[in-house]
Formats: sequence, C-alpha cells, structure tokens
Amino acid sequence: MKFDILTLFPAMFEGPLTESIIRRAAEKELVDIRVHNIRDYATDRHQVVDDAPYGGGDGMVMKVEPLAACIEAVKRERPAARVILTTPRGRTFKHEVARELSREAELILICGRYEGVDERVRELFVDDELSIGDFVLTGGELAAMVMVDAIVRFIPGVLGSAGSVETDSFADGLLEYPQYTRPAEFRGLRVPDVLLSGNHAEVSRWRRCKSLEKTRIERPDLLVEQVVTPSDRAYLAEFERALRQ
Amino acid sequence: MKFDILTLFPAMFEGPLTESIIRRAAEKELVDIRVHNIRDYATDRHQVVDDAPYGGGDGMVMKVEPLAACIEAVKRERPAARVILTTPRGRTFKHEVARELSREAELILICGRYEGVDERVRELFVDDELSIGDFVLTGGELAAMVMVDAIVRFIPGVLGSAGSVETDSFADGLLEYPQYTRPAEFRGLRVPDVLLSGNHAEVSRWRRCKSLEKTRIERPDLLVEQVVTPSDRAYLAEFERALRQ
Repeated sequence: MKFDILTLFPAMFEGPLTESIIRRAAEKELVDIRVHNIRDYATDRHQVVDDAPYGGGDGMVMKVEPLAACIEAVKRERPAARVILTTPRGRTFKHEVARELSREAELILICGRYEGVDERVRELFVDDELSIGDFVLTGGELAAMVMVDAIVRFIPGVLGSAGSVETDSFADGLLEYPQYTRPAEFRGLRVPDVLLSGNHAEVSRWRRCKSLEKTRIERPDLLVEQVVTPSDRAYLAEFERALRQ
Repeated sequence: MKFDILTLFPAMFEGPLTESIIRRAAEKELVDIRVHNIRDYATDRHQVVDDAPYGGGDGMVMKVEPLAACIEAVKRERPAARVILTTPRGRTFKHEVARELSREAELILICGRYEGVDERVRELFVDDELSIGDFVLTGGELAAMVMVDAIVRFIPGVLGSAGSVETDSFADGLLEYPQYTRPAEFRGLRVPDVLLSGNHAEVSRWRRCKSLEKTRIERPDLLVEQVVTPSDRAYLAEFERALRQ
C-alpha cells in the first residue's frame, strides 16, 4: 500500500515513520510511505504557502496554488489515489474507516495547517475530509501519522501475530478486558485467580464480562444492539444492580 | 507546564517535539517536555519490559515493575503530577478535556504498547485513562503527541495571535466555516463575493451559516441545544428544506 503525505513540516515525520511497526512494514515492502514538502511546489520567489483569509480574521490560510501543484505532481505517479484532507471539519476517523481505507492501493494525505486550507483545494481534489477527534491540532501531521498507523495494522502481514487485530479494542465493538502478566503478585495486588486457572472457557467468560463492565463505565454509548448478546445483556443488568448498591 | 512522557520508543518523539508550535512553546519556556525511556527502569539483565498475558492470548503485555519504577522516579520530581495512561480503553479525549488538562502544572503521560499495560499499573498509579478515538494504534506514543499538541494550544502565550484558539473548530461547538485566500479566482472557482465585500456583519452571518451547514452535513450530532441559537435554528430548517429538494 502506498501512502503519500503532503506537508509543510516533513521533519515531523522522521521519528514516527522510522520506528516500530511502520518501519517493519516498510522493510517488508508492505507499505511505501513518501513525505512531500508542499513548499517545494510554491512558484514564487519567496516560496509563500499561506496568506491572510478573505473576509478577515486571525491566522493564515494555506494557498491553493502550491497545494494544487503538489497534489497534481503526486497524482501523476498515483493516478488512482484517494485524496484525504486531515481536518477537524471532517467526518470522524474510526476503526471501521481505518479498515475500509486499508483496502485502497494508494492514499494521498494532505496535512492542513494554520487556520485551514483554501476551500478550493477541497472542491477540486479532495475525496474525503477526515478528523481524528473533536479537538484541534496545530496541523494535520499528527492526524496523518495516526491514520497511517491505524490503517497499516489492517494490512495482512503487518502485525506479528496474525489474529491480534481481531482482539483489539473496538474489533468486537467493546473496550478490551484488563491484561496481566508476571509477577502473579505485586505490592499486594494479585492477578485474578481465573487467569491462573488454565480453564479457557472460564477465562473467555471472565474477559467478556470485564469488557462489558469497562465499556459500561467508560463508553456506554458503545453498548448497542449489534454488539451485545442476550447473555451479555443479562450480565449487564446484574452489573447495573451492583453499581447502584 | 511540565510534561513527562513515559515510552518504550523515545525516538518517535524526535520529529514532532522539535518542530513548529511545540518547539516555540519550549523556547519561550511555556512548556517543558521530557521523554523517559521505560526500558531504562527494567531491573533484570536483559531489560525485559513485556511478557505473555496471564490467561493466554496473542501479543505481549507491558510489565508492572519497570513502569512502577519509572513512574515513581518521575513523581519524585513532579509530586503533584496527574498521571494519564493513553489507551483505547479510556474516556475520549476532546476539546474540553484538552482545555481542562491545560490548567494542570504537571502531567505524566504513559504510552501503552503491545496488547496493553498490566492492569495493576492503572490501579496503583493512573488518574485518567484517555483515548484519542475509536481506533487502535500500535502504541500510545502518537496519542500522547496529539494530547500534548491539543493541550499546549490552550496555554496562554503559546499561539501567535491571541484569539485564534477561540475561533477553532469546536470552540463554539460547531465545525469551522470554509476559508479562502488569494487569488480571488482559481481555475474558474471564485471566492464568494460576500468575503470580498468588506461588510463585516455580512461576513459574520455568512460564516455562521456555513459553519451550521458543514456541521449539519458532517457532524449532526454536534447540533445540540447549547450551541444552536433560535436564528441558527431558523436557518437550519431552511437548509434542511433545500437539502431535501
């Protein structure tokens, strides 16, 4: 899968793209990530990439011409690429969006900056506006890194152990159960006996219940029809009663 | 404001923390960000920081001892620090959470990795579990960077132009209006006349309407009682009718 990231701050990507899972995926040639400096496509002598907004207001807006030139240069090599603008104005990037985008062969990610990007960039070139959450970042660079990381996990062969993307939080619609590793006791806190029992059915049942409890407490909005089975529902009713006492 | 980030991959922070707004905030001594390598606190000869989960399953779990040692070492210098674990299992990090956290003097951010962190870390040390969104990342490093960036913007003096955090998306509960800058025409697409008119009241009205339209299309969930005025509501009703035609 090919990613082309368009940014005014290419140096920001040095650490994140050269560590850990993304580096290994690149080494295995499962992903190919290139970072392009939008400023290289500015045509004037001072390489201006931003200007004051029409209509007034604070801050600067990214100009359409350098971005248009940069997008078109990348598209000549990636004619089928889906073009994504990272912006708090977009629809929300979630687990399912990451899965869906992992099926694309080519993605172009445009990192917005300052007070935003000239709207004509969106009108002329952008397929999707995506936001990673209801908060504002100084630029789209961190959002692009987040999207690349979350998407790359879905590409077959990227994760070491095949199944682990399916046991992640959100994979079954619930938050993940708590995890423990050695030692069995630390400062008086013991690992729950069931996890030491070797009884796989009991372990599974306990984990499902703990996932339900955690989700009920932190994110009750996730407990929708499609993810909760009748036996989950019975357990949750019991847990509600316990919470109220 | 002091941030201490606890991670197994300190090199990931090199690009993001040395660029742009965060670097400038550090230069102005408004923030002080230190990155600690959890592995330096492993006590055994092989510096083991992870182990297989009790109860079985894919992947590895971050061990409690190195994290406990690292957190306690940092807390000796930051006794009042609020301790945050970045995890998809937490409550959702949003604009308001960023604003709230920007009032803290000291924050410790623990970056989870692999299949998670031994639950006893949470029980013993963690004040808040925070997730940046409903997707899974390879580690909490990108989430920590996102939180630092979103929080730092709220610290007085960090943003160049004082008012701009208040005109961001979400500041008034709506997505931001479209922005334009020169040229007035690009490939046949003209900047809306109202933005060239110099009539500030008209510009404000147009921007509010465009914010409402964008929010209605991308994020209708944000159009709640507290953010929508009676005149907004009248405009939205009109817009609904136009959409249906």
